Amino acid sequence: MNAVILSVGDELVLGQTVDSNSAWLSARLAACGVMTLYHQTVADDLDATANAIRAAAAAAPLVILTGGLGPTDDDLTRQALARLMRQPLVLHPPSLAKIRKFFKTLGRDMPPSNRIQAMYPRGAQILKNDWGTAPGLKAKLGRSTFYAFPGVPREMMSMFAHHIEPGLARGSGRCILTRTLHTFSAGESTVAGLLGDLMDRRRNPVVGTTVSGGIVSVRIRSDFATRREAAQQLENTDAESRKRLGELLFGSDGVALEEVVGALLRKAGRSLAVAESCTGGLLAKMITDVPGSSAWFSGGWVVYSNALKHQSLDVPMTLLRRYGAVSKEVACALAEGARRKSGADYALALTGIAGPDGGTKDKPVGTVWIALASKRGRSGTINVECFRFPGDRGMVRDRAAKTALNMLRVRLA
Amino acid sequence: MNAVILSVGDELVLGQTVDSNSAWLSARLAACGVMTLYHQTVADDLDATANAIRAAAAAAPLVILTGGLGPTDDDLTRQALARLMRQPLVLHPPSLAKIRKFFKTLGRDMPPSNRIQAMYPRGAQILKNDWGTAPGLKAKLGRSTFYAFPGVPREMMSMFAHHIEPGLARGSGRCILTRTLHTFSAGESTVAGLLGDLMDRRRNPVVGTTVSGGIVSVRIRSDFATRREAAQQLENTDAESRKRLGELLFGSDGVALEEVVGALLRKAGRSLAVAESCTGGLLAKMITDVPGSSAWFSGGWVVYSNALKHQSLDVPMTLLRRYGAVSKEVACALAEGARRKSGADYALALTGIAGPDGGTKDKPVGTVWIALASKRGRSGTINVECFRFPGDRGMVRDRAAKTALNMLRVRLA
Repeated sequence: MNAVILSVGDELVLGQTVDSNSAWLSARLAACGVMTLYHQTVADDLDATANAIRAAAAAAPLVILTGGLGPTDDDLTRQALARLMRQPLVLHPPSLAKIRKFFKTLGRDMPPSNRIQAMYPRGAQILKNDWGTAPGLKAKLGRSTFYAFPGVPREMMSMFAHHIEPGLARGSGRCILTRTLHTFSAGESTVAGLLGDLMDRRRNPVVGTTVSGGIVSVRIRSDFATRREAAQQLENTDAESRKRLGELLFGSDGVALEEVVGALLRKAGRSLAVAESCTGGLLAKMITDVPGSSAWFSGGWVVYSNALKHQSLDVPMTLLRRYGAVSKEVACALAEGARRKSGADYALALTGIAGPDGGTKDKPVGTVWIALASKRGRSGTINVECFRFPGDRGMVRDRAAKTALNMLRVRLA
Repeated sequence: MNAVILSVGDELVLGQTVDSNSAWLSARLAACGVMTLYHQTVADDLDATANAIRAAAAAAPLVILTGGLGPTDDDLTRQALARLMRQPLVLHPPSLAKIRKFFKTLGRDMPPSNRIQAMYPRGAQILKNDWGTAPGLKAKLGRSTFYAFPGVPREMMSMFAHHIEPGLARGSGRCILTRTLHTFSAGESTVAGLLGDLMDRRRNPVVGTTVSGGIVSVRIRSDFATRREAAQQLENTDAESRKRLGELLFGSDGVALEEVVGALLRKAGRSLAVAESCTGGLLAKMITDVPGSSAWFSGGWVVYSNALKHQSLDVPMTLLRRYGAVSKEVACALAEGARRKSGADYALALTGIAGPDGGTKDKPVGTVWIALASKRGRSGTINVECFRFPGDRGMVRDRAAKTALNMLRVRLA
């Protein structure tokens, strides 16, 4: 089966807002074997909306539209549908009661403009929205089934899951399942080289690579007649890809590097502290993004000034003067200081030049020393490495923090 | 003038990637008086791409397409254009030389597949791409002018600015300019109440509000016949809005709260340190996102454990035991400790429960104490406040860090 996805809104057509609803809907449809023919975004305009719905209904048996169901004058989806159906808008009293009640719980009277949200073209069906004020609409247009949902992502997602997904035929003759594997520390061409013939475009499941935020991801798309076969083949390609990627691979789908590191620390019963100069708190922030991180994260120091490096973490002033703050020696002293002061099993330290200023010929912007101190016996060991990260301030900081996490991941794995 | 924007890619239609190019293009076009009729996203399919281009060229005098110019078998934009033009693809030797050279600088031979990127439909025009390997294409299709750019945002943006924007008639009879003002610490309805009649939908410039990340933004859209009038009216509405919003307003368009605070500190010649528990480094990260922040940021402590609160910042163990880590007393002790240890003029401290676990009846998830210590004379003063932030862990941390920044902003303003 095919579908067309429409989104309505001046803020989308004018580029003030990026439409993320359509991507979400197509991914969910694909998993049910429904292929999206196209997405189209139209302005808050009665003619434009009606024309887009008419063309979509002619092109596909399933049309899903988001947006244009709000209470203001520029919300015209229900009027466009009424025009195509050649029906008047009529009131749906239970919806009106629900909207009034919604405002009452906020301690306010319903503004008169919200009454329109309880109107629907005669002959259409009202779809319950338990997550907001605007109900959805469903109607037959020729041989096509048309759905309209509010544009608020949370409401749209819940309504799709409730009103459309269950009804999509499981035996549609096609199921597309996708999975994304994530790697860090090698470039896209290296990853592609390891995957080799798996990346042949004629293969099914098809395997491709993309890069985002320094993470090279491997996308697997398995397209078969049944869900069972699609799942089986997805698992086979997943297993083969993992074998080839080895240590580069750190997780799949929505998982982040910091979650993987957190899980490894928790499993090993170990703790971590950090000392950050150039990343300025980003590494600590990433680690503590993970719920429950207090179980493995002791704490951190953001030591921007030399004085603070010395006072807080006992970095000798002689080291700072002789080698400079961005040096192997200072990175090691920071890591060792953080480990000792916190009592943690591991400490990561970063010192570098994030830019845009501060670079020199010897130490250009992007130079970052990363040290990993580990408790071993009574003293400890330190690994330290120098990196030269490309890009602007944000990129250098992001790559540096991820590289530090990845050093610890490889150590723990 | 009107335009249609097309984007090509299975990853877009399947929902693996969100199309942000189209929004960017429409915003830039609107500023030149070009209204986008619709966006459409199509799959990597020759028929689908050719049909979409044909329909777009029939609908508007300007069509911009992004994507499908890569070197692989599923990049079919140039083939689709060749079909519509009824012309063969021919080689453009200077482009081929440039692509070879690009690979040479990476120390690699050009893969044979990249040769296609130097091909173009006879009669079309090759558009220079100084930012990547794939040149763009330009062609007349009936009365419409068609442009194809690579989908890589940076390349697409540079090429639009270079190849299209300068040629767009300034005297197009319409110019739409937009500006967004940002406020923090009041809800959307409060902001709307302050704006009052400025939000009348029939007004031009039209004024609307949106909320994202706790920041209530006021969008002004000025739509007039000339750039001069659009600019003048935009400034008038901007000035009136600022007057009504008062202290709530912190900046406009792309500016972030941390940049505003950084600029205020720099101007006042003051410095800042932070002590973070629940935000775990996020506040320091935000502050150091701003280039040059070492001029006003001394450093920070991420004190997750009670032991570290005591050892690093001298928070008395008796306070921690008597009042708990999430308390007014500990927030003040953290701020005072960070200010004293760092020697900074100001210190912000946060201690709270970000969740999902750790909440109690008295201190539910979202409870955060924020203290601001200021040097005054030989000792100092402390302001402290308790907040109850809604939402999940990420939201609580984000709002807490922004609220802390905003406390300092109001103090400095």
